Formats: sequence, C-alpha cells, structure tokens
Amino acid sequence: MRIVRYATPEGPRHGLIEGDTLYAAEGAPGALRRGAAVGPLAEATLLAPVEPTTIVCVGNNYDELLAAKGLDRPEIPNVFLKAANTIVGPDADVVAPAGQRFEFEGELALVIGATARKVAAADWRDYVLGFTIANDLTARDWQLADTQWWRAKSSDTFCPVGPWIDTDYADPEARALRTLVNDEVTQDSTTADLTFKLGEVLEIVTASLTLQPGDLVLTGTPPGFRPLHPGDVVEVRIDGLGALRNTVVAG
Amino acid sequence: MRIVRYATPEGPRHGLIEGDTLYAAEGAPGALRRGAAVGPLAEATLLAPVEPTTIVCVGNNYDELLAAKGLDRPEIPNVFLKAANTIVGPDADVVAPAGQRFEFEGELALVIGATARKVAAADWRDYVLGFTIANDLTARDWQLADTQWWRAKSSDTFCPVGPWIDTDYADPEARALRTLVNDEVTQDSTTADLTFKLGEVLEIVTASLTLQPGDLVLTGTPPGFRPLHPGDVVEVRIDGLGALRNTVVAG
Repeated sequence: MRIVRYATPEGPRHGLIEGDTLYAAEGAPGALRRGAAVGPLAEATLLAPVEPTTIVCVGNNYDELLAAKGLDRPEIPNVFLKAANTIVGPDADVVAPAGQRFEFEGELALVIGATARKVAAADWRDYVLGFTIANDLTARDWQLADTQWWRAKSSDTFCPVGPWIDTDYADPEARALRTLVNDEVTQDSTTADLTFKLGEVLEIVTASLTLQPGDLVLTGTPPGFRPLHPGDVVEVRIDGLGALRNTVVAG
Repeated sequence: MRIVRYATPEGPRHGLIEGDTLYAAEGAPGALRRGAAVGPLAEATLLAPVEPTTIVCVGNNYDELLAAKGLDRPEIPNVFLKAANTIVGPDADVVAPAGQRFEFEGELALVIGATARKVAAADWRDYVLGFTIANDLTARDWQLADTQWWRAKSSDTFCPVGPWIDTDYADPEARALRTLVNDEVTQDSTTADLTFKLGEVLEIVTASLTLQPGDLVLTGTPPGFRPLHPGDVVEVRIDGLGALRNTVVAG
C-alpha cells in the first residue's frame, strides 16, 4: 500500500495510490483502506506523508562515507534529533539560510507504525509502518560551529519527506539510492552499504527512547553531498519509493 | 489563568485552576474559559499541561553556572533539542538509566502560544502563552560520551513538565528557582541570573526555526544539579508556578 497526504480545500487528507490514480483513504491511520477515486496522481498536491513528533537521524552510517572520512565503524550509531517543525512535503521549496553552506543528504526513512520500546533488532519490521524518502538538509557551517546541531539540522524546511509511504516495501537494505541536483547525479549508492542495519538502529534507539506511530527514523546518507544554491532542484530517488524533489530558495 | 491537563475516565482534559479548585476548561486551546467545577485540585491526577512537537533547550544559561565552569558568555546561546516523546507530568515516575549518572536540572519553561517565526526580542511576550516548570533530566555519562545529546537528554521520561501553565505570570525574569532532593535544597537561584534573557532566546531560536503553539522552550538551569538515585523525590519550585515533583525509579 502506498500512503500519501494531499491537499484539499477542506484541509489535508490521507490517500492511497494505485498506479497513477489517487484514491481517498478511509479508516484509522494504521488501518487505511481504499475509498473513492480522487483523480490522477499527477494533478494532486502531495504533502509530507507523515506528521511525526520525534525525528531520529543517524549520521555517518554508510560504509563508503566512513571510509571516505577515514573513520572506523563506531561502537554505536551517531544518532541525533531533528525538530518535527522542519517537515515539508514533496515539491515544497526549501530555504537556504543566508551565508551558510547548505547541503542535501538523501536518505531512506522508516515510518514507525507501533509504539516501539526496547525493540529487539530481529523484530524491527513489526514496528515499522513503511518506508519513504527524506532529505536531511544541513547548514554545514553551523554544524561545524555549534556544539549541538540545532539550526544546522533543524532550520525551517530542513526535512523534506515523501512522496509516499510504502507499507509493502521489500528488500529495504538492498535498494539503489541516488540524489540528483539539476538532473546531475551527485549521490549514487545503495542501502546495502548501510553500516548499522535497520534492526540495529531501531534496537539501539528504542533502548532508551520510545518511538510512537508516525515518528521518523532517517538512516543516514552516502557520500556525494555538496552545496546547494537558490534555484537548484534537488531530487532524491530510492528504487521503488519514487523521487522526492524540492527547489531551493534564498532565505 | 492557570491551565492544566488532567486524567478522566474518558481521557485527558484541559482544566483551569482557581484557588484549590479544578474547573473543566471549555473552548479552543488558545482561548480556554472556565466550565463546571470538577473538584478539589488535590484530588485530581494532573498530566503534563503541554503536548509539544518541538522542545528547544538552552544550556549554560545562568551567569553563576558559567562562572562556576570558568566560561565566558557565548556569542549565541548553547541550544539543543529534546525529543517530545520524553514528556511526563507532575508526580510521574522518572526512569534512571542503569549505570548512568542521572541528574536533574530545574528550569523555567516557556509555552509557545502563537506561531513564532523571526521574533524580535522586544516582542517575545506576544508569542508566549504562559510559563511552567520543567526538569531537564540528563544522563551525564552519555552527555560526555556522545557527540550529539540524544539519549543524554532524550531518554524516556526525561522531560517532566508542570504542574500548570500560568498565562498571567508577571516578572518571569525575577523569580526564585529552587530544586529539592528529598526535601534538601540543591539548586537555589533566581531567573534574574539568566544569561540570555527570554526575548534574546526566542529571537535567536526563531531566526531559523519556527515554533508552533504548544512548543516548549526550556531556558537553562543554575548550578547545584547532582546525581539522583532510585527512590529519590526531586522537586523543582519556581516562585508563583508551584512545584514539579517526580520520583526516581530504576531503569
């Protein structure tokens, strides 16, 4: 099932995608079913498919990136938080802060589906509703200047997510991930290169912090990120999850 | 007006306190008015009075603490995030992670009342619904071990808040703040000692991150924090805002 949120004159609604058609979704968030056809997907205004309260991210979580930085695999993942207020949807403008080196980081994201507390790595899939794409936008100069990454990772619009949540996604740890800037490939990797696998990440995070349905886990980015500038179009593609495309505007 | 949330058999409800009586609250969250009397406040089960999505905290924000650490006033506040999933209410148990030095930090907290984006310091009060007490619970060993403070500041139950939001609170920057452990005073200071004042904090944070109604800003803690142990009762008192009392249990 592919779950979206979309704009209507009466406010955001959940929908389901089949082929190129958008259907209204009926039922509770965890048990949506197909309602009436809304129209062609291409004519819908898609919003971020999730409204998390907590976003947990993992840094330095691709082997190739660790190698490029000359780092060993750490004992535990390099976890940090991103403020939920930063969420924007597919096709939304993203704001480059003035005077900052502003970089994209294309990532596979997990959407939590059930209260996840002290999850065992082997059981991780039971707690995940599905998968989507995220772009962990980063103000790199602030990241280097500040002890804690707040504005570096949590300025407005710094977390584009979408276009949909795939609840039946197979082989999430063996999928091509590419990021393009103005149609030029800049990140070209695979989730097979993840250093801490999805189950390990969920086990370690939920050992101390319970995640709730709708919360997001961003799993890290491969090498190839670089500065964006106003007017750039940045597009993260993950095999089977579509493309998350955003346009950079000046802050 | 003193706003609370309290438990009922039908789920959490907003209430208002007058004297020692709890009244049901009617109307929208930003415009509550007094409804029927529920009963004596002492008989109510109070919950955290807020449900934020984003919690922003300031570290090293008391002059006396900076002096004790031999630090100069930084150029900008030492900001970090706390996961909203950590919120618990007054009288809730708080969990000491096994093997961790687990410390309290009593703090004045602002509850955002209106979408706060690029707020000018002088206008800060227009964006604040009111004031409450928070305890920025901290796993100190993890804080020293991890680059980013995730489990150090955002393990389960690490953000007790309450007991109420005071919307008419006068002189928030000239109030006594004390923390007691098992009735012994450990922190004894005043919000007059805040290094970055409330307006400065809101201006700097909202320059890059928009805060939404219900979001929380924890303004920092004075010296005197120290380890807690299972069985300890930790109580943060701020003049006019009551007492936030929690009992430590083993994780």
